Amino acid sequence: MTASALEAYLHAHIPITRAMGVRAISAGADRVELAAPLEPNINVHGTAFGGSGATLALLAAWSVLHLRLEAEAIANRVVIQRSTTDYLLPVGGDFTAVASLDGQDIGPFLEMLRRRGRARLAVSADLMLEGKLAGRLTGDFVALSEH
Amino acid sequence: MTASALEAYLHAHIPITRAMGVRAISAGADRVELAAPLEPNINVHGTAFGGSGATLALLAAWSVLHLRLEAEAIANRVVIQRSTTDYLLPVGGDFTAVASLDGQDIGPFLEMLRRRGRARLAVSADLMLEGKLAGRLTGDFVALSEH
Repeated sequence: MTASALEAYLHAHIPITRAMGVRAISAGADRVELAAPLEPNINVHGTAFGGSGATLALLAAWSVLHLRLEAEAIANRVVIQRSTTDYLLPVGGDFTAVASLDGQDIGPFLEMLRRRGRARLAVSADLMLEGKLAGRLTGDFVALSEH
Repeated sequence: MTASALEAYLHAHIPITRAMGVRAISAGADRVELAAPLEPNINVHGTAFGGSGATLALLAAWSVLHLRLEAEAIANRVVIQRSTTDYLLPVGGDFTAVASLDGQDIGPFLEMLRRRGRARLAVSADLMLEGKLAGRLTGDFVALSEH
């Protein structure tokens, strides 16, 4: 899937992403980067609203897992069970969220999903502001294969 | 603060709340209830997007703490440091988030805030769907008093 296809998919199926101005910078089976402008996501302090930051990170984590399963030819439904977000820096500008599966051994997860039709995986996403780590989300996802 | 004043405040200062269709049902110094319709917050599965659910719960938790500090006549700035959300049920309809400080001894928190100008408090919010608990957020907030 191309970045523009992922962006169109998110805008079509999760309409709040349009209001947030979410853009897809890259969309691969190992790494997804999303971006959002400050202005529609601003809060009472003039910085990015924590809810928007956590949401962008959740979208990046969900997307990389979904795209990886598509690349593995597993028709899937990926659902969030628990998410934890650490807010590390005030976000005073446009921000990005990067989720990567690099360096994560997802073999046992894929095997379980193929065998049982259901498996869990934790996927993290970094919130970045001008090259600095501004936050981090870890999402515990359940993937269901659909035949 | 009345519910309509809280709603107007959120819409004015956190514009994504307008896109989400956030409404304030009640706004007190001990309890805040917010509501959101499913449609603008829908996801790829036809249920409420987890990011919107977590955001509504975060707004409720932030609001009740902010309103409590206003009621205590403490000019304040309340910032989220960490949030954890458990998604318990698929949310197939309009949903609410209820944050309450009832039963929580916030005396030591208020004392620390008055003495040091800075204190931490964990505030939870329940996501409700038709009277059922559909999720729960716990937010670790830092409050700063402003003189």
